[in-house]
Amino acid sequence: MNKIHAAITGVQGFVPKDVLSNEDLAKMVDTSDEWIITRTGIKERRIMKDGASSDMAAQAVQALLKKTNTDPAEIELVVLATVTPDYPFPSTANVLCDKVGMSNAWSFDLNAACSGFIYALSTASQFIETGKYKKVIVVGVDKMSSIIDYEDRTTCVIFGDGAGAVLLEPNQEGLGVQDFILHSDGSGREFLVQPAGGSMNPASIATVENRQHFVKQEGKQVFKFAVTNMAEVSAAIMEKNNLTSDDVAWLVPHQANLRIIDATANRMGLPKEKVMINIQKYGNTTAGTLPLCLWDYEKQLKKGDNIVLSAFGGGFTWGAVYLKWAYNS
Amino acid sequence: MNKIHAAITGVQGFVPKDVLSNEDLAKMVDTSDEWIITRTGIKERRIMKDGASSDMAAQAVQALLKKTNTDPAEIELVVLATVTPDYPFPSTANVLCDKVGMSNAWSFDLNAACSGFIYALSTASQFIETGKYKKVIVVGVDKMSSIIDYEDRTTCVIFGDGAGAVLLEPNQEGLGVQDFILHSDGSGREFLVQPAGGSMNPASIATVENRQHFVKQEGKQVFKFAVTNMAEVSAAIMEKNNLTSDDVAWLVPHQANLRIIDATANRMGLPKEKVMINIQKYGNTTAGTLPLCLWDYEKQLKKGDNIVLSAFGGGFTWGAVYLKWAYNS
Repeated sequence: MNKIHAAITGVQGFVPKDVLSNEDLAKMVDTSDEWIITRTGIKERRIMKDGASSDMAAQAVQALLKKTNTDPAEIELVVLATVTPDYPFPSTANVLCDKVGMSNAWSFDLNAACSGFIYALSTASQFIETGKYKKVIVVGVDKMSSIIDYEDRTTCVIFGDGAGAVLLEPNQEGLGVQDFILHSDGSGREFLVQPAGGSMNPASIATVENRQHFVKQEGKQVFKFAVTNMAEVSAAIMEKNNLTSDDVAWLVPHQANLRIIDATANRMGLPKEKVMINIQKYGNTTAGTLPLCLWDYEKQLKKGDNIVLSAFGGGFTWGAVYLKWAYNS
Repeated sequence: MNKIHAAITGVQGFVPKDVLSNEDLAKMVDTSDEWIITRTGIKERRIMKDGASSDMAAQAVQALLKKTNTDPAEIELVVLATVTPDYPFPSTANVLCDKVGMSNAWSFDLNAACSGFIYALSTASQFIETGKYKKVIVVGVDKMSSIIDYEDRTTCVIFGDGAGAVLLEPNQEGLGVQDFILHSDGSGREFLVQPAGGSMNPASIATVENRQHFVKQEGKQVFKFAVTNMAEVSAAIMEKNNLTSDDVAWLVPHQANLRIIDATANRMGLPKEKVMINIQKYGNTTAGTLPLCLWDYEKQLKKGDNIVLSAFGGGFTWGAVYLKWAYNS
């Protein structure tokens, strides 16, 4: 029997309908459309006015199950990456399963910030490779607007809300997840953090008044680490798997900043036409960016395409996944 | 080559030094030592006065690495189960790796409430079984005192702080994790929940004033589901693996309530001598209970012992893991 790989057999995204444009932000903080576009590549982002992360995830997963003709009761495991769960506990994955009727799945949330989706995809792939499960869903979702300080011009221009999900199934033709290289470095924790609301600084009147429940980012430090490490790990996974730039059909980069994406693509020797980009319309949706990219570009993907997913985020966490696309749309 | 199993090759716990006794609690809320012991089996619990979950986890993991003669740089992956992370993000696993010098590991937090440890153990075992990794650490840690309302006598008597960790390594002699059955049911989310601090109810002055950042539990409902489901799944994993009560050397039950533990043991046909119990001294440490039990009983465990770990918790989440113990102490 050939080795079992975990193949993505369907992808679906969901973004809320309300748009927050650069012009809108320029009325709220001291910034401009030109400044935001030049520094980040973002023109607008979506904001969810009502509901929580599970509501976006449920929209994405319901549509995914429908398009793949999958009965929700067939799903055996759901791994959901988020930093904005509905509640500190129970998990948003549990809530999602209830909302969508995935009554036979067990499910958990995985916290790895902007690398959440590649961490979750790698983790879920192991359950397929061992033969334990045949239908697993991986979700990346964040309602970043719930933890963004709309008085902080350095962060509020970057983040948006969104969700994406993929179905994983076994493949014995050599398609699916081939390899992953993942890293963490907790010494970077102070540079990108939500300081309060955990056991270090439990919620209190003071933590709310001091705005410690919002994302704090030291942009220059994070940018420096992100540029270096996302490019390094993307080159490393190519080298480890003997892939030339000609072999790679697509780079699917975390959508945090257009300049980080460009640096990664350059390091991999990839032309712009091979790089998935949707940052201009969604901004950084944290765990949502990679499945949202795959969703936007799904129709252009061909069976057998070599794809590298790459991310960097809070933790620090970073890494790359190499997979062979398993179907034609 | 024989099938690779993920075997626990070392276990270590850590509890903070400060004791909160039933007598102490009787001075804080309307309760008594007799009431608490009769209803829960708990006499005292440990409370961490300074620091966060990563500090307890670091104590447990440092001692684990020392006793197993493991260089921290050899660890390839850390899966940490908690509902009381240091921060909402980055993950406590990232912080832990930095504190302990596990510089080559990638790491993430897994949220599955009181079933966190069996979820994390099952997940980590897959990375060993596929041959991807040879040294993985699984941690269960909770600083429950950071989310407990010490004016709510129905919850403050139950929970305590603690951490436990195991080292997983490949075993080709048939020892280690044999099977797991895991379940989630998000329809139970309202019965055991931390209502605020997520994307559903972001932290605000109102959520703090309304005490919504504390654990809320509808004890009767949770008890009813826990008794039924923990017993059911424990019997199910025995049946699935053709284990009689004579075959099972130890039940390692989540330490939430002595009566739930008794019901589970009865359903499995196990006498009290085969049931690990330390609830009287630590209370319910959420993700910490199972590794703390294994740590307390480590010297009594023999290579080849059939062990069933079983848990039920917020979500709802529940399940059982069947493993063969891999070493004599």
